[in-house]
Amino acid sequence: MIPYSILRELVTENEKRIVLLVMDGLGGLPIDGKTALEAAYTPNMDTLARESSLGLAHPIDPGITPGSGPAHLALFGYDPLSWDLGRGVLECLGVGLELENGDVAIRGNFCRVDDSGIVVDRRAGRIGDKEAKKLCEELQDAVKSIGDVEVTIRHVKEHRLAIRLRGSGLEDGLPDTDPQVEGKRPVEDFGGTKTGRVLSELLKKAREVLKDKKANYILLRGISKKPELPLFPELFKLKPLAIATYPMYKGIAKLVGMEVADLPGESLEDQVECLRKNFSNYNFFYFHVKKTDSYGEDGNFAMKIRVIEEVDKAIPRILDLNPDVLAITGDHSTPSLMKSHSFHPVPFLIYSLIARGCGASSFSERECARGDLGIFHMKDAMQLLLAHAMKLKKFGA
Amino acid sequence: MIPYSILRELVTENEKRIVLLVMDGLGGLPIDGKTALEAAYTPNMDTLARESSLGLAHPIDPGITPGSGPAHLALFGYDPLSWDLGRGVLECLGVGLELENGDVAIRGNFCRVDDSGIVVDRRAGRIGDKEAKKLCEELQDAVKSIGDVEVTIRHVKEHRLAIRLRGSGLEDGLPDTDPQVEGKRPVEDFGGTKTGRVLSELLKKAREVLKDKKANYILLRGISKKPELPLFPELFKLKPLAIATYPMYKGIAKLVGMEVADLPGESLEDQVECLRKNFSNYNFFYFHVKKTDSYGEDGNFAMKIRVIEEVDKAIPRILDLNPDVLAITGDHSTPSLMKSHSFHPVPFLIYSLIARGCGASSFSERECARGDLGIFHMKDAMQLLLAHAMKLKKFGA
Repeated sequence: MIPYSILRELVTENEKRIVLLVMDGLGGLPIDGKTALEAAYTPNMDTLARESSLGLAHPIDPGITPGSGPAHLALFGYDPLSWDLGRGVLECLGVGLELENGDVAIRGNFCRVDDSGIVVDRRAGRIGDKEAKKLCEELQDAVKSIGDVEVTIRHVKEHRLAIRLRGSGLEDGLPDTDPQVEGKRPVEDFGGTKTGRVLSELLKKAREVLKDKKANYILLRGISKKPELPLFPELFKLKPLAIATYPMYKGIAKLVGMEVADLPGESLEDQVECLRKNFSNYNFFYFHVKKTDSYGEDGNFAMKIRVIEEVDKAIPRILDLNPDVLAITGDHSTPSLMKSHSFHPVPFLIYSLIARGCGASSFSERECARGDLGIFHMKDAMQLLLAHAMKLKKFGA
Repeated sequence: MIPYSILRELVTENEKRIVLLVMDGLGGLPIDGKTALEAAYTPNMDTLARESSLGLAHPIDPGITPGSGPAHLALFGYDPLSWDLGRGVLECLGVGLELENGDVAIRGNFCRVDDSGIVVDRRAGRIGDKEAKKLCEELQDAVKSIGDVEVTIRHVKEHRLAIRLRGSGLEDGLPDTDPQVEGKRPVEDFGGTKTGRVLSELLKKAREVLKDKKANYILLRGISKKPELPLFPELFKLKPLAIATYPMYKGIAKLVGMEVADLPGESLEDQVECLRKNFSNYNFFYFHVKKTDSYGEDGNFAMKIRVIEEVDKAIPRILDLNPDVLAITGDHSTPSLMKSHSFHPVPFLIYSLIARGCGASSFSERECARGDLGIFHMKDAMQLLLAHAMKLKKFGA
């Protein structure tokens, strides 16, 4: 990608609309010779592929498996090696805690300490959701603010919680208190910072509130602020709408400055209807489908195929809106075979009047590997989308 | 591309010769399923393609449409994001005004101002070539030098002119005087620089000379010096000859230190004959064909095809000379469909005894997209050409 300083000079506004359809974890590995995308019956995407430009995108760099945070930063045109979404930030975004500049976001773990304060169980016996949620509420009731700092506590899942500190002059980058191994004390060396004073007080309260529980303490990790990214609408001169159902993706979209749609439900149908309704009011749509990734993570190849087929059925309704550019891709690969995110580059399709095309016969990893977009870095995707929407002026004379 | 400091260590001289055949704006978009290169009957290039290495080159970066200046810098092995050919520089080169280090090059526009000096027409009614040329001559007659600074004025086209200042201690980077919109005064804030004093005097003279004309003033833009590039012959240890017919390409070639051939005429025949005559005296030939771009810009698909076919017919005579490397490419794409330069990567073919090849059936965008050179940045092309001419030593032991 070219430097933002140059990009800003080139970006120009026009009336063209871009739809970026992201099937989370789309890329896969073959099972019985075919990936989920290849095994799925996708007549609509295959028809598109014949006239579209295809390629494979490395979310980060060859061989590097991304988390959802950096993968989405790359997708949105931010170099994921230059911008860091801290673990605390992602945890807060994941539960729908919005972050403003200056907020400190923290991931917490319920744990068990012995009488002398030594950690004996870093996850408090992988405490259940119900119990942990209740503990979060008790903790929140006991601590609403510390000094002039507002404290917000939310349960995440099992032993995990998210904490947001909001107030002036807070520092981030403090070390984790989690000693990483059992048999040690938490490391609570905050070096006289304001954030440290707030956290010490919070930990003291936690000790009081939790003292008779199985989970009798909390460990803190990823004490981070949201990065002060140049905002997507201003950087790319676009009016973006995020159509996503999961909090983390809504959160990342909001973080980069997108508006996030209120959806009446979580079905693909709801998302397509939302796209239709809002189509004339925005010119960039981030349309996020989560379940391709979830089923990949579960190793459920058959269901990953089914989700891809459902998305394929929605394509005609998206095309009916006449987007000037329709891109179909994932944020990363999640092969069912691996039950996890993977490093494999992600299929990328750009449909537009000025897509050169490569005569592909279908939308698949294999066709994308020999596509006319080549194998590129995902951080370049926004340049490609803007170019195909004729939103970039000529560089130099 | 590797840093010049390393490249210089690797480049070695040998007796091998490289021909770089550039069809300006070669890349295209399909019309009725085929690009101009695909639709053209090119038996010679197709035969070459079978034994050649193929790829697609991004002149600047994915999605970025280049002007001719940065596209050529990349082709000649200069990072176009690091080296800037200012608008004034290109305008001077385009009319054959040579630039030395220290010269200041300026693009001028004839305009119309009212009695109070406010710009009422930035292009003086798009004044015709004949009239504008005459005004340039009158201006040049009135101003040959200002102090110790030599002033050269040339007409470009319609309302555009090129101005070169030559003298010691001149600064570049002064702001444009063009207010960009009508109804405002020119911005002539040169901040007490020597260049500014010369320009103020020049503008005063322009006001006097033009006072009763329709075009009664000039606006100045792109006040720039030529970049002090490392010179091509010294950087690559080559003896290069440019065989080009258009002033701008001759100018860029001269700027990087190439010798420029005097051609008896402007036909492809003249160019091929020039190549033949000079073949033993140089070892690098930049052979530039302009008309593929011109017809692309005109949207004339049929004529773009015909020019490609003419070039194809010349291939046997070029091969008769036994070049060790023959590369065929463009500087950028100019799809007839778009009638403009575009961002699409450019077909690139390298014919050499040590080209690996990819069993392509023809020289086309599609075959290049799946070629063995992959999709690369044009600034890497010189490394590839040197390598295929065995002019690069091993890096490290």
